[in-house]
Amino acid sequence: MPIRLDDSTADFESAFRDLLSAKREVSEEVDRVVADIIAAVRERGDAAVIDYTRRFDELGLTEATLRVPAAEIDAAVAACSPAQIQALETARDRIEAYHARQKPQDAWFTDAAGVESGWRWSAVEAVGLYVPGGTASYPSSVLMNAVPAKVAGVDRVVMVAPTPRGETNPLVLAAARLAGVDEIYRIGGAQAVAALAYGTATIAPVSKIVGPGNAYVAAAKRRVFGQVGIDMIAGPSEVLIVADATANPDWIAADLLAQAEHDASAQSILMTDDAALADQVERAVEAQLRTLPRAAIAGKSWSDFGAILLVADLEASVPLIDRMAPEHLEIMTAEPERLSGLIRNAGAIFLGGHTPEAVGDYVGGPNHVLPTARSARFSSGLGVLDFMKRTSLLKCGPESLRALAPAAAALAEAEGLHAHGRSVTIRLNL
Amino acid sequence: MPIRLDDSTADFESAFRDLLSAKREVSEEVDRVVADIIAAVRERGDAAVIDYTRRFDELGLTEATLRVPAAEIDAAVAACSPAQIQALETARDRIEAYHARQKPQDAWFTDAAGVESGWRWSAVEAVGLYVPGGTASYPSSVLMNAVPAKVAGVDRVVMVAPTPRGETNPLVLAAARLAGVDEIYRIGGAQAVAALAYGTATIAPVSKIVGPGNAYVAAAKRRVFGQVGIDMIAGPSEVLIVADATANPDWIAADLLAQAEHDASAQSILMTDDAALADQVERAVEAQLRTLPRAAIAGKSWSDFGAILLVADLEASVPLIDRMAPEHLEIMTAEPERLSGLIRNAGAIFLGGHTPEAVGDYVGGPNHVLPTARSARFSSGLGVLDFMKRTSLLKCGPESLRALAPAAAALAEAEGLHAHGRSVTIRLNL
Repeated sequence: MPIRLDDSTADFESAFRDLLSAKREVSEEVDRVVADIIAAVRERGDAAVIDYTRRFDELGLTEATLRVPAAEIDAAVAACSPAQIQALETARDRIEAYHARQKPQDAWFTDAAGVESGWRWSAVEAVGLYVPGGTASYPSSVLMNAVPAKVAGVDRVVMVAPTPRGETNPLVLAAARLAGVDEIYRIGGAQAVAALAYGTATIAPVSKIVGPGNAYVAAAKRRVFGQVGIDMIAGPSEVLIVADATANPDWIAADLLAQAEHDASAQSILMTDDAALADQVERAVEAQLRTLPRAAIAGKSWSDFGAILLVADLEASVPLIDRMAPEHLEIMTAEPERLSGLIRNAGAIFLGGHTPEAVGDYVGGPNHVLPTARSARFSSGLGVLDFMKRTSLLKCGPESLRALAPAAAALAEAEGLHAHGRSVTIRLNL
Repeated sequence: MPIRLDDSTADFESAFRDLLSAKREVSEEVDRVVADIIAAVRERGDAAVIDYTRRFDELGLTEATLRVPAAEIDAAVAACSPAQIQALETARDRIEAYHARQKPQDAWFTDAAGVESGWRWSAVEAVGLYVPGGTASYPSSVLMNAVPAKVAGVDRVVMVAPTPRGETNPLVLAAARLAGVDEIYRIGGAQAVAALAYGTATIAPVSKIVGPGNAYVAAAKRRVFGQVGIDMIAGPSEVLIVADATANPDWIAADLLAQAEHDASAQSILMTDDAALADQVERAVEAQLRTLPRAAIAGKSWSDFGAILLVADLEASVPLIDRMAPEHLEIMTAEPERLSGLIRNAGAIFLGGHTPEAVGDYVGGPNHVLPTARSARFSSGLGVLDFMKRTSLLKCGPESLRALAPAAAALAEAEGLHAHGRSVTIRLNL
């Protein structure tokens, strides 16, 4: 049974704090192992990558077979059903259309002092995309990571995806093809992250690495950060559904379970001002669990981390929502836009009863890579800007430099940086 | 003497690689100490902060004196000269005007399928700004960090600045006042970072921490990352000056030394196609060093890490510039815009002979917090977006959900996530 909190009770604040601070992830002590793997790949390149792939993925590779050849990708595409390819294309096109609107504008302007300034955006040259193996190998994640990179203008998108014992996922390869991924290597783990960051004889290095992975991959990304850029380190996924008496309890239950089926450490929370709805949802969850293939996982997530928050007034509870800063926020109320407009911290908001999170996971258009574990307080979902960087531009002429010189020289002197001051005044022929 | 590389020689590529990979920073083993400090602050709050401040800053504080009161800031402002206040105001106004143009647009649109989507930007609620103590306590950095936060709409900007033995820098307090900083605490080191990230009885926690610091501060920021957001971890500063025969060697020398005087591990590099200019610059550096107060620091930086790259053709050398990805790039050529337009990786570009980096350090308008150590390949200077986050929005109705349902259901089935599929189909009354 999920826990139930009621904001009319005296211990609500303390129980809410416990809910916020509950650890859902066991931190594994993998850092030492990962450090050794990275050092070996830096030293021995492909040979080390091949050794670790034999050991961890039980797969024998050579330098010639590290990369997945075009013919194998062709075969994977052919192995998918037409309906699957069409679904991937629909998703690809919609993700592309949404992200194309995120492309930022350059700027260049002249101010009253005659100083010209602005900035210019440019794409990261090469990006690595990590795709997990096994059951967590999702074609939708390939699209969500690779399409924004290509929209940004990244020249070279390099995918790594382990294939334990040689098992490949045709949909993952098809998604990579449709998203315009340029190179695919059948490697994974910390060794793949190290190969992307530092390069080997076969794999040219990239400048940024994105994509989800297990504890080893996360630790490797943290370690190579600085040498390359990384995206966020994602934690277990979570949804908060805010619903009033107008909401359909069966739909809510389905959405809570869609989150819970990801992972036993996923978290599904319902906040409602209607105690009767809370009861109906709880019964509907139990009923739907009975016919769910992943009932064991979803049931464990729901009973370990699920929660129902009963509040007197949903609008008055917006501060609680902002403190939770949910990765996914579904609003099923009579006026979802009204409540949405009051909320500050959320990765993605799904408005109204006909917008299940799952439609956004696949084909809505917005990205499904979103900030977890309350990090929506300070970060955003993946987007085109994650694959671009901004160069600032400044240009003075003799007159505009003269206009700025007194202030610059005064601050340089105040900071004790005389060469700074001289580099300005030397140009004034004073 | 700085090293000199000539791209007409056979060993150029290998020497250039060595230049790129040269370590300029000694990595100190501080992580264990920092972990203990953070744990102590989380456990004992203000008491731990006060203990560490007594030990490291030789300053006795109480809970009542942790915060700098308004009267003390008033007094600091009064202690600055009118010219200094005016210079700070000029800088503040110009930084504000430049960054105001960076405020991003929200979006909301309806596509052909009738799906509504978009996004909304919002400011991070509370931000911590670390300001180093002692000689690295720069009022310009206070402005460069705090002004964009306020332009973004951050409600609460909290500054921490250690005051070893009680020594305060009036200009830092004045800059904080002028930038609209909301709270100032006289604490520093890992203990200040921990207090900002986790909060104490006196200091409410923030959601993001920015600003430069020593190895302890950097290690603490890495450790609290996830609990809060952080900005980049900055390395030693660097400048690349690209100049042709039209450039003034004395001006170039002044700019190389302005970078070198920061720190013995700073790096100043000249790239030119004119060997005579290279010689003139080298002599000018020697001459200007003689009259520089910080000659010991600047001279060490120049001789240890300075470099002159002689190339046959500047435009053909753009790939070398992109590989360096300089934090600061000055272009002093006959047509600076032409060369600038070819360059992809640089934190900030200063165009033409009348735009010394120092004018940008203080009053140009663009930010002086920029990506170091080649990270301009994948990251940008500080800006308004660093203090905001984007929430994606999606809304389907009965008809538009029906249009998307087949693709969503196909992908959910392909990924083995049946509850995802059900959360879509349950709404279709199939």
